Formats: sequence, structure tokens, C-alpha cells
Amino acid sequence: MKSHTAYRTFETSQRREFVRITEDVQGAVEEAGVEEGLVLVSAMHITAGVWVNDDEPGILEDTLEWLDKLAPPSWREPDTDVGRELLPDGGDYRHHRGGEDNGDAHLKNLLVHHQVVLPITAGRLDLGPWQQVFYAEFDGRRRKRLVIKVIGE
Amino acid sequence: MKSHTAYRTFETSQRREFVRITEDVQGAVEEAGVEEGLVLVSAMHITAGVWVNDDEPGILEDTLEWLDKLAPPSWREPDTDVGRELLPDGGDYRHHRGGEDNGDAHLKNLLVHHQVVLPITAGRLDLGPWQQVFYAEFDGRRRKRLVIKVIGE
Amino acid sequence: MKSHTAYRTFETSQRREFVRITEDVQGAVEEAGVEEGLVLVSAMHITAGVWVNDDEPGILEDTLEWLDKLAPPSWREPDTDVGRELLPDGGDYRHHRGGEDNGDAHLKNLLVHHQVVLPITAGRLDLGPWQQVFYAEFDGRRRKRLVIKVIGE
Repeated sequence: MKSHTAYRTFETSQRREFVRITEDVQGAVEEAGVEEGLVLVSAMHITAGVWVNDDEPGILEDTLEWLDKLAPPSWREPDTDVGRELLPDGGDYRHHRGGEDNGDAHLKNLLVHHQVVLPITAGRLDLGPWQQVFYAEFDGRRRKRLVIKVIGE
Repeated sequence: MKSHTAYRTFETSQRREFVRITEDVQGAVEEAGVEEGLVLVSAMHITAGVWVNDDEPGILEDTLEWLDKLAPPSWREPDTDVGRELLPDGGDYRHHRGGEDNGDAHLKNLLVHHQVVLPITAGRLDLGPWQQVFYAEFDGRRRKRLVIKVIGE
Repeated sequence: MKSHTAYRTFETSQRREFVRITEDVQGAVEEAGVEEGLVLVSAMHITAGVWVNDDEPGILEDTLEWLDKLAPPSWREPDTDVGRELLPDGGDYRHHRGGEDNGDAHLKNLLVHHQVVLPITAGRLDLGPWQQVFYAEFDGRRRKRLVIKVIGE
């Protein structure tokens, strides 16, 4: 069995942002020299995620807007009654007592999930025609890391 | 290390549908001849998912209804105010500008997640007594693929 | 390739509860003697999950409260209009016709996801500085199992 570990660092200019990383992951698979196996792609932070979906700008914008409704930040007024009701009962996250303001980003991490596992077949990521891999940042403008772990033969 | 790759194709009669695939996945494990390892079960589309839960019709119906509230389609009037507020701010998905109508299915893919990894112990899927594996279709009535990747020994 | 399987049993005193298991998972990795590989951590029940996030009490409390809004139990009156609307249309889960009252826990399992896969590098869980692994119980006060499957070399 072969294994290979690669790390990537992101420092997004936006607080929330999708960054396409399909080519990075494929690059790590090639460095590993693995023909058949699995690759784990996992955010090393608790306010980021990894999502496989279509690289279509409309979807990515729809998704960020919707995540803000389901997991509303408290650093701005919610746009909807749903957002207001989904905030913590006291109006602000308990997590913010320690001086943070990213409580919503932890919940977005939960919804998106912080990792994916992708199949490797004949040396390539075995993805469907529209599947692209995204690093999903929910509390950016600081350095964040991602681990790519390849195993196989 | 052994590896084995199997593909399954679905063309559901309903737009949204859960299809039980536990036996398919177990079949792929047996074809692989793997006694100890992992199996990845992953939708190859961005409007479908894979879920492990109970094969109880009430749960499956509850879940489809609830997913429609959290990730509302725009091709029919939402049943609830929550659904109306969770639609994109302009009332329709940006993704639909290209002629699609499945924006909600991309968000359901996010909630359900497009894949699971299952343990294989002594040649069997090492699942709890109520755990069944489902392919979760959110934009069916067309051919869609799933990949099953087994690795182990 | 080495593999190792460990099981853990939980019987939480609360109906809903996060239990930190990072050290348990690291222990299983050491038992396996795996230096480079992957470890799957997977609830064997359909009303529990596994989450990687910060071991900060405020976050955990925020998250349980928020999950109750998104996936409301029907055994108590919802606190919000959102909760009322996200309940099934008839007011109660179809799943409860069989005598259960844990329909909400199945939906929480969907949101949190029942498993994670973690990288192992140089014999250690290759986690970020704030990442801890939690067993997430949504229908406790009974014996529930978790499987930890390590593979690698």
C-alpha cells in the first residue's frame, strides 16, 4: 500500500468563499503514484468545509446566500424572519462570549461537512462529469489549512 | 491491498426517491473478495446523495417532505413561509438562468451529502441492526450513476 | 495493509449529548499500529452522528439548540414558528405511527452525518489545532454502538 500526504493553505480575500481545488487533489494523486485507491480531502479547521458540486457561479452564490439563512451570522441583521428565529434564543451565539464572532461558521461547517473521500481509478479522480471539488471557507481572511491523504496502490 | 470498482445506474420514475442499495454494496464487497477494509459509496451527480438510515417508509416520506422545506424547489409554490424565505432572495435560483430547474436538488445534495464510507469486517458490511444504505435521488427521471469503490484485504 | 476494528458503547444520561471521543479514536489507531492510513469513525445507529468541531461548551450548546430548530422534536411544543413549520405537515412524524417518538433524531443524523474519516500521519490523527471528534447522541439513555475501523501501514 502506498500513502501520500499533502497540505494546502488558503487565505481567502472574502469572509465566505468557495475555492475550486479539483486540480490540486488530482495533483496530489499523481504525486502519490496511486492508480487504485481513495483520497481524503479534509479541512483542518472547524469553520470551513469541503463540497463536491458543479462549478457554476449561480449555484455557488445561491448556496452561500442559503447557508446564511440556515446558519445566520450575528454580526449583521438577518434578512428574514427565518434567520432571526434560527439565531440562538438569546440573540447571539454562546460561543461569542469568548470574543469570537464566527458562531455561524461552525454551523455551516456542520451543514457542508468538513471532508469528502474520492475514489481513484486508473490514476484519476473517478468523478462524474459535473463534479468539482471545492474548499468552502466560512471564516476567511486568515490562513487556513487543508489535508489531502491518498492511499492505494 | 485489493481494490474493486463497481458502477450502478439509476433512472427513477419519481423526481425524488430513495432507492435501497445495501445489497448492491454488499455484492460489490463480495466481488472484491475483501475481508477487512472500507467501501466508498458515492453518487457521481451533483443532484443526488447517499444516506444510511432505517428502511421504514414513514421516515423516508418524512425526510423527503422536510428536505423540500429546507431546500425548496421553485417549480411549485412553497407550502410554508419558511420555504418562501429559504428560496433565493429574488424568488428563484440564479442557477436557473441557464435553463435548469433543479437548484433545490443541489442544496439537497449538500444536506444529505453525496457519499458514505462503510466498514467491511469479516467480508460483511459492518452496519448496525437498522442501518440500510440508500441512493437518494433529487432530480430523477434521467440516467444517473453511482460508484462503489472497495479497498482492503 | 493492516486493519483494526474497535467498537465503543455509549449510554448517555441525556437524550441529546455530545461525547468527546478523540482520545478513543487515537487509542484505536495505536492498537492498530498504523503509521500512515485512514480511520473511519461511524455511528452504528440511525439516530446518532459523529462530528468534528471545537470542544468549546458554547458551540456545543448552540449546536444542540439550533438542531432542535431545524429538526424539531414533536414530543414538545416548538419554540419558534420555524420549528412549527418544519414539523411534518400533519403535525407529527409518520415514523411515530409505529410507537416511536424519535423522528427528529433521524433528521439530526442526516444533518450531522453519521461518520467521519480521519487521516493518520506518523501514527497520529492528523487533525487541525482545534479539531476534536464527538459522538453526537440524539436519542440517548439507551445503549448505542460506534465502530472505529483503521486501515493503513
